[in-house]
Amino acid sequence: MDRQGRVQGRKTVWRNARLATMSPQLAGLGIIENAAVVAKDGRIAFAGPQAELPSDLSAGAECIDCEGRWITPGLIDCHTHLVHAGDRANEFEMRLAGASYEEVARAGGGIVSSVKALREASEDELVRQSLPRLDALLAEGVTTIELKSGYGLDLENEAKSLRAARRLGDERPVTVRTSFLGAHALPPEANGDKDGYIDRVVREMLPSIAAEGLADAVDGFCEGLAFSPDQIARVFDAAKAAGLPVKLHADQLSNLHGAALAARYGALSADHLEYTDEAGAQAMASAGTVAVILPGAFYFIRETKKPPVDLFRRHGTKMALATDNNPGTSPLTSLLLTMNMAATLFGMTVEECLLGLTREAARALGLLGETGTLEAGKWADLAIWDIERPAELVYRMGFNPLYSRVWRGQ
Amino acid sequence: MDRQGRVQGRKTVWRNARLATMSPQLAGLGIIENAAVVAKDGRIAFAGPQAELPSDLSAGAECIDCEGRWITPGLIDCHTHLVHAGDRANEFEMRLAGASYEEVARAGGGIVSSVKALREASEDELVRQSLPRLDALLAEGVTTIELKSGYGLDLENEAKSLRAARRLGDERPVTVRTSFLGAHALPPEANGDKDGYIDRVVREMLPSIAAEGLADAVDGFCEGLAFSPDQIARVFDAAKAAGLPVKLHADQLSNLHGAALAARYGALSADHLEYTDEAGAQAMASAGTVAVILPGAFYFIRETKKPPVDLFRRHGTKMALATDNNPGTSPLTSLLLTMNMAATLFGMTVEECLLGLTREAARALGLLGETGTLEAGKWADLAIWDIERPAELVYRMGFNPLYSRVWRGQ
Ligand SMILES: [Zn+2]
Ligand SMILES: [Zn+2]
Repeated sequence: MDRQGRVQGRKTVWRNARLATMSPQLAGLGIIENAAVVAKDGRIAFAGPQAELPSDLSAGAECIDCEGRWITPGLIDCHTHLVHAGDRANEFEMRLAGASYEEVARAGGGIVSSVKALREASEDELVRQSLPRLDALLAEGVTTIELKSGYGLDLENEAKSLRAARRLGDERPVTVRTSFLGAHALPPEANGDKDGYIDRVVREMLPSIAAEGLADAVDGFCEGLAFSPDQIARVFDAAKAAGLPVKLHADQLSNLHGAALAARYGALSADHLEYTDEAGAQAMASAGTVAVILPGAFYFIRETKKPPVDLFRRHGTKMALATDNNPGTSPLTSLLLTMNMAATLFGMTVEECLLGLTREAARALGLLGETGTLEAGKWADLAIWDIERPAELVYRMGFNPLYSRVWRGQ
Repeated sequence: MDRQGRVQGRKTVWRNARLATMSPQLAGLGIIENAAVVAKDGRIAFAGPQAELPSDLSAGAECIDCEGRWITPGLIDCHTHLVHAGDRANEFEMRLAGASYEEVARAGGGIVSSVKALREASEDELVRQSLPRLDALLAEGVTTIELKSGYGLDLENEAKSLRAARRLGDERPVTVRTSFLGAHALPPEANGDKDGYIDRVVREMLPSIAAEGLADAVDGFCEGLAFSPDQIARVFDAAKAAGLPVKLHADQLSNLHGAALAARYGALSADHLEYTDEAGAQAMASAGTVAVILPGAFYFIRETKKPPVDLFRRHGTKMALATDNNPGTSPLTSLLLTMNMAATLFGMTVEECLLGLTREAARALGLLGETGTLEAGKWADLAIWDIERPAELVYRMGFNPLYSRVWRGQ
């Protein structure tokens, strides 16, 4: 066994399957009927028509009959704040009594209450509280997840969050990607001094976190409530200096041209994007920055301005979907429901939804070379479904037809 | 053992629990901390403060330590079309491509395609296809479910649907209530003759189904697309003659004064109600007819007119919630998500949501004497939850914190 527990030379064949490969070489979902997948040493050795399966690949392999079930790439949740402490069910009750998201924030609730809870929780406690949420996602076929910090807001607690995130990847068979989101909100002790706090992010927190290898990317929240484009640019410059890719919470509640800023820095993704304009969509397409659409937050905070899906289509901006799991604006732990919301609320097609949780989500994490499609050479991350057609995964609400989940061949 | 498999004299005590009793004797959710519940012979013998638990009741009982978990009454889904064949994921794709619900219906899709699928399915096949949907609901703590016919639209196939519904109650530990919904839609062979079809419903189908004991209630769909108030009144007269209570799909897409019609007949419930006016809300309150709110259908068909929750509050109309599980307009199998939708989309409070799935849903089925609250004498139908406060059940999306489910004491 290697250090990740994989048996060298282990081979498995899934036969009698229908594949939605998501391969860009094929149209739409890249469907192949009467197909087989072979995993060898944790990677896909073959994914294609069963009739073309080379006999040397299947020799000596464990053989699983899928009985006509569908196989997709394992799902990818490319934007979450799943590592957090406590919940904000009480604020939810406030909002039902008529308070707006901003009123809750100004009343000392909002992100600040999650910061307090996270700082009080130990790393062990963070892992303990986060595991049930992770397990809910895995139960629906997730094999890769992004986890952000951003409720610590000082070096010690941001690092604690990212260590807890890494530990989730040791506790469960799932690929974890971490993002350092120090520029999420202003901590109470900063007393309104945003520039001073950004100084600490770029001089103290980011270099230390990068040196410890705790972050795979650097994220920020560009919004009136959070940080300005200039402040975000400073964070991005520091990320570049540390050799880390960037991404951005952009244009969620107003248009500060966050999408264009992200594109200018060649960001992996810009996320939310309700208020993004045509120039922003175009800039993202040119830069290869993925638009990560987060319908759970839109729905939960009763937003009415929809992300400009038509602009993204027109300019060829790639679109991914994610839960945005977080206690304040999206306590959502279902990617299947995320797809239904993207379709129902934003009119995204079945194809856009499924590509958005596989190929495009992998692209948004800089992992397209490793996962997100069923193609030889990639990790053998599979979701096997008890369905008759892929559209069912988007159409149903609150129903989980996952038959089995495979991570790195097992 | 009696014929339902309950051991006579069997006693169980759940200790160290927090109860949301939903008792009308207490305010709000009827919360009791440091509480215990005793079940004897399938019924609640005690539900109250642990300090007041009579020692003779706990003597010889199996004892379960709830470790501070919350207990609510088992959840009740009081409006479903869960017994159906096939799905309509293909129409969902059509709608995403821009077709309206009515356009899909006029194009020969809609209910008619479900009628075709149901007529082609055997009773065994109907049971087989419906069980996974039922299991999804039970996994969230459902102990009572209403199941409608309405895709058969002739005597043989309506009776087949209702027999399949009864069989679901034999296959799983759940209380099943059936509703005969012959007046759901016009079958293709009626060639547009609605009055002639209603003749068959009232003269042939309803009497035969009542005589066989297949229906616990009679339902109808009062809408331009379906049947007029006069046609529904004929169905209700026949139901009364057969000694069956009535309920109605009312005012979903337009105001035909279905709510007032239902109230005039003393209906158990009127359901949907997006277009109900003040007179309708008032009539329902006076008649004791429950307003069954169905947010899944509202959400799925992208309706914009909301049911008049404020009018129901002002007039004291009781409100219940349900999934409306059906393949065309609400492929929803989660009551937890139903609550979140009622709160998020309609501004219903946490208290209204939880009462709407317990006490008021029991009332909507005429079962308030048997279930829906944690009170001595009722069936011991419990849902035990891994939560810190009841609001979590409404706040989270796509997360199931059920710890265990108890039906009739087991
Ligand atoms: Zn976010
Ligand atoms: Zn219905």
